[in-house]
Amino acid sequence: MKTRIGIYGYGNLGKGVEKAVQKNPDTTLVGIFTRRAPERVVSPFGTKVYAADRAEQFIGEIDVMILCGGSATDLMEQTPAVIKSFNVVDSFDTHARIPQHFADVDKAGKEAGHLGVISCGWDPGMFSLMRVYGSSILPDGQDYTFWGKGVSQGHSDAIRRIEGVLDARQYTIPVPAALEAVRAGKNPALTTREKHTRECFVVLKEGADAARIEKEIKEMPNYFSDYDTTVHFISKEELARDHAGLPHGGFVFRSGETSDGTRHMIEYSLKLDSNPEFTGSVLVAVARATAHLAAKGETGCKTILDIPPACLSALSGEELRSHML
Amino acid sequence: MKTRIGIYGYGNLGKGVEKAVQKNPDTTLVGIFTRRAPERVVSPFGTKVYAADRAEQFIGEIDVMILCGGSATDLMEQTPAVIKSFNVVDSFDTHARIPQHFADVDKAGKEAGHLGVISCGWDPGMFSLMRVYGSSILPDGQDYTFWGKGVSQGHSDAIRRIEGVLDARQYTIPVPAALEAVRAGKNPALTTREKHTRECFVVLKEGADAARIEKEIKEMPNYFSDYDTTVHFISKEELARDHAGLPHGGFVFRSGETSDGTRHMIEYSLKLDSNPEFTGSVLVAVARATAHLAAKGETGCKTILDIPPACLSALSGEELRSHML
Repeated sequence: MKTRIGIYGYGNLGKGVEKAVQKNPDTTLVGIFTRRAPERVVSPFGTKVYAADRAEQFIGEIDVMILCGGSATDLMEQTPAVIKSFNVVDSFDTHARIPQHFADVDKAGKEAGHLGVISCGWDPGMFSLMRVYGSSILPDGQDYTFWGKGVSQGHSDAIRRIEGVLDARQYTIPVPAALEAVRAGKNPALTTREKHTRECFVVLKEGADAARIEKEIKEMPNYFSDYDTTVHFISKEELARDHAGLPHGGFVFRSGETSDGTRHMIEYSLKLDSNPEFTGSVLVAVARATAHLAAKGETGCKTILDIPPACLSALSGEELRSHML
Repeated sequence: MKTRIGIYGYGNLGKGVEKAVQKNPDTTLVGIFTRRAPERVVSPFGTKVYAADRAEQFIGEIDVMILCGGSATDLMEQTPAVIKSFNVVDSFDTHARIPQHFADVDKAGKEAGHLGVISCGWDPGMFSLMRVYGSSILPDGQDYTFWGKGVSQGHSDAIRRIEGVLDARQYTIPVPAALEAVRAGKNPALTTREKHTRECFVVLKEGADAARIEKEIKEMPNYFSDYDTTVHFISKEELARDHAGLPHGGFVFRSGETSDGTRHMIEYSLKLDSNPEFTGSVLVAVARATAHLAAKGETGCKTILDIPPACLSALSGEELRSHML
């Protein structure tokens, strides 16, 4: 029995989920559900496309709906709404609002008898797992998370909102000396500025004031003012040629002691050619687990921290014990 | 309510578990159970020491017994026996015999109404988790496990069994070029010899034939004949001075594609000052999870692949979602 998946929202992430399903032969795609006019959305894999408001017609035909909307505007409403009809998985990544989102999805899921797994991707997601495993095993220790080198969509969007900016791409970059100090077990106390730098590639509208825009970027609170930021002005063509991808990655370290002077270092790193394709692949593995746990009667809300790892795998418990343990 | 732990077997690993309990204030040690004369065993932490055959007197006072015997001779008998009286955790690491051990512990645990979690440590253990997460997320890919640099107890023991050898220490070392090729995403096909080298420090008995012993080591099937092996003869004093520790570590990589040419690399590494102390720390975290799952009525056998990560942590679900997710 294949896990029957629906994709709700067909931007970069929805397309990443669609590709991931092609790599997981025990899963199958029932359809893409979009708020755009469905006849104007074409899947390169021939997946059927439906209007989002037709999703309920597929109750009983979809095991898990993967919600691929954005955290800023979509998911806090969509996930609690769609769980009324389906088991759901999302990649909600606004860390500060996770407790509220969890409560909303848990309540709606329990009422409907469906299971939702929220905040799955790489951070939150794989990096969260590494922080929990690391701190559970080495409670007397410290963890460090670094992001990048990679494109931050939120920071790129923030630059695009500045008057005079046509387009922009922002890279978050870990500071090599900080990475090395952590890796060497020095347990440094690091400020925000010491951990990451920010590099911006900006295309100006005609006649825009480059100096004023550079200043606005560098002084933007929350996004840039606490960082050493570099701004490059480039042409529209250069942006399309050199910065079309969405690579990302990062590092989670846990350093700790088990007795006086006996030290251990755990390092986990990701180097991703495509943030949305990797996130989509995590979502499909979690959808498999969600279908499995829902079939056992689990309802309400979970996160990847609540999922037995074996459930993410297409292999059976016997196969995992024989070949992977 | 603290998790009440017993230690069954008090060698290097049992001592590592005892240290780990000191670092986990939500756990407490009820006692050490030893097959040696208990009055001759002294705990540096003042833990009470009992004869192993008195363990049953502590039924109801111990939530989880952590079995710290060896995989070669002890655990295949001890774990299915002790689970009759207690929930148990072990670090059974003979990969090929895990399915049989699992079946034995599962049967005895279900009959007794207790839960056993076997094969917990770093490999099997954390490395197994990384292989399962990596292959579940990137099913179109390859994984690589490297061990070291670190002391292999099994290989050290194999050298000690050679006639004329007084003592020995063997280090397993990953080949740097192989590590780099994997890290660069080249997906190399690597022979056993290309992945690891073996370095041996040997103390001879008086009058022993060094040349014959070096030849016997290098030609020993399974252990050394498939590797490039270096043998150093040193004094008993040098061995004690320079090779007293039991450091270890290693790497798990998963490299995979999510679409044509879109590649991702996951790397997990451990650098451990003390193999038994780190393994002991994993066992204590798993004991916490075992007590939790047993209290919910779970019985039989599980591995770390079946444990929801959140159960390993001393933090609540709310705390994990607020601070670690």
